[in-house]
Amino acid sequence: MVDFNPTILEETFDHIREESRRKLMKMRSKKYSFHFILGLTLALGCAQPDSSDPLPSWNATASKEAILDFVGKVTKEGSPDFVPVAERIAVFDNDGTLWAEQPIYFQFAFAMDRIKALAPEHPEWKDKEPFASLLKGDVKSVLAGGEPAIFQIIMATHAGITTDEFGKAVSDWIKTAKHPTSGRLSMEMVYQPMIELLTWFRANGFKTFIVSGGGVEFMRVFSEQVYDIPPEQVIGSTGKLSFELRDGKPVLLKLAEIDFIDDKAGKPVGIQQHIGRRPLAAFGNSDGDHQMLQWTMAGEGTRFALIVHHTDAEREWAYDRESHIGRLDKALDEAHGKNWTVVDMKKDWKRVFAFEQ
Amino acid sequence: MVDFNPTILEETFDHIREESRRKLMKMRSKKYSFHFILGLTLALGCAQPDSSDPLPSWNATASKEAILDFVGKVTKEGSPDFVPVAERIAVFDNDGTLWAEQPIYFQFAFAMDRIKALAPEHPEWKDKEPFASLLKGDVKSVLAGGEPAIFQIIMATHAGITTDEFGKAVSDWIKTAKHPTSGRLSMEMVYQPMIELLTWFRANGFKTFIVSGGGVEFMRVFSEQVYDIPPEQVIGSTGKLSFELRDGKPVLLKLAEIDFIDDKAGKPVGIQQHIGRRPLAAFGNSDGDHQMLQWTMAGEGTRFALIVHHTDAEREWAYDRESHIGRLDKALDEAHGKNWTVVDMKKDWKRVFAFEQ
Repeated sequence: MVDFNPTILEETFDHIREESRRKLMKMRSKKYSFHFILGLTLALGCAQPDSSDPLPSWNATASKEAILDFVGKVTKEGSPDFVPVAERIAVFDNDGTLWAEQPIYFQFAFAMDRIKALAPEHPEWKDKEPFASLLKGDVKSVLAGGEPAIFQIIMATHAGITTDEFGKAVSDWIKTAKHPTSGRLSMEMVYQPMIELLTWFRANGFKTFIVSGGGVEFMRVFSEQVYDIPPEQVIGSTGKLSFELRDGKPVLLKLAEIDFIDDKAGKPVGIQQHIGRRPLAAFGNSDGDHQMLQWTMAGEGTRFALIVHHTDAEREWAYDRESHIGRLDKALDEAHGKNWTVVDMKKDWKRVFAFEQ
Repeated sequence: MVDFNPTILEETFDHIREESRRKLMKMRSKKYSFHFILGLTLALGCAQPDSSDPLPSWNATASKEAILDFVGKVTKEGSPDFVPVAERIAVFDNDGTLWAEQPIYFQFAFAMDRIKALAPEHPEWKDKEPFASLLKGDVKSVLAGGEPAIFQIIMATHAGITTDEFGKAVSDWIKTAKHPTSGRLSMEMVYQPMIELLTWFRANGFKTFIVSGGGVEFMRVFSEQVYDIPPEQVIGSTGKLSFELRDGKPVLLKLAEIDFIDDKAGKPVGIQQHIGRRPLAAFGNSDGDHQMLQWTMAGEGTRFALIVHHTDAEREWAYDRESHIGRLDKALDEAHGKNWTVVDMKKDWKRVFAFEQ
């Protein structure tokens, strides 16, 4: 574990993002730019990769080949698979697909930290579950309370404040929040192969969206910095909002009422409500992404579905059909039956995180 | 009234859109390109304008000056008003701001036409209000039924079918639908000065969004063709959707249940849920846009609010405080009090529609 300065991390991401944006403008006609990958590589401080390889953190397996093949096909002008830029929509689940979700969702870690921070204002929490257990550090008892307990914690930490106040709370938290087992900053727990994939899809004219069960107001705080995905391309679960004037100044108050759950059958609905166009490619890792993958693949023409299968207990985690977080069961069966691309994290990824040597 | 071929109109819009997209890539650093306006002008078949003028359909009044001044300020690097490209969000109401809304909203005209088209499958409508009156052509009686009547008509025409089926119905309708008094195609009833403004904002790095009380599934069918605004940048009212498998094929069914009304205090909420970033500029024409304008202007730094005031009974319509459609009352007072830009359509617009000579 290294002593990491979050400001340096931010500057690094800022650099990558700016580089990506500038290069994207130039690269619309090219598939891939040597200088861009070089810039990315230098920014991350790793060795210089093969300059013809847009996905240097991917091993040369069937998964990588399938990705390259798909992008090559739909971007080749004059080919029967060609798709105009405006229709190149790619959707990505977040937890477990773009960053780690074990042993606990980052958003839940944020909620728990926030309960602790807010506890002085809520003396009644000392004797009230699930807050009492949480404040004693007894996470097991909290989780034993199931969905109602989690709902109470989410509402106590995500509602009753304005959208601006909430954004600031997340922004402050994520600058220093450490992953519970790796000790890394949450923003370091993103999958380097997927960052390369996002960058490469965008370089090929794709508009990349996050479509996640996570809260949209939470993810938007860091999506641009971490993934180069602007807030308007983040779709997630939402709470109801109320427009109010406070001393003549308008605010949006976050209410303790669920508006939309962007998970399972909710994902195609969220896609339709926000994008209004069927994606050309979808990326997920669990049964929560199953319907999004089905919806994507049911469109006409060449399409692409990819599942990140967590098979690497050493560098990350190994889990699927029996996991309580990110269960992958039915979607895995359909993926195998229909030849969707299933990434074997252990075999397909040369490295998982950017901080690996 | 000319004999208009809708295919030609489509091709014209396609040409403008393609031109706009290609030029946009080149124009990020420039404010305005002579060739682009020339292309636009030739495509529309009108005389060549002053090549230094990005808004040739605007008279040289204070409104035009305010628009040019705002864009100049926020795009000037190094200036205290400079705003990075990612934060250049501009939101536009649709009905009455980008196209005509009198004497009846186009979407309601679509619903009425669709009732007629569906009537053979619904013999019971002959004896059931508001359908009976509508089928007899008695629109006054329909409207006398107020919101409940309109709700019934909207639900009978907008629900119970899949999103794909609905999109096709709108697409077929809009190719030939004529405005009830001008006899023009609905897509011809867009305001040429606003098309120029949209194009010019985009040329200056702005992302343009529609934020309308209209149905999102309705507007998205033509937003790209008419305004060069892709479906994912259209925010509107929504009905609930249900993801279902039909013979193993996924569909999204439109349910007869309102999900969200994107009007009045709903507009800032819709903006937050979809964009997640406060707009830098907002454009509206009625009290339905009031809160969106307030929300936009309450942000920090230089911002811009514009109201299209319908003052031209000759070329378009003249209406404001007493109108049942597009009532403009409280927002007009606040606009005058706070020096928001109020466009006097009669004085500020050299021409209203592209088809004017």
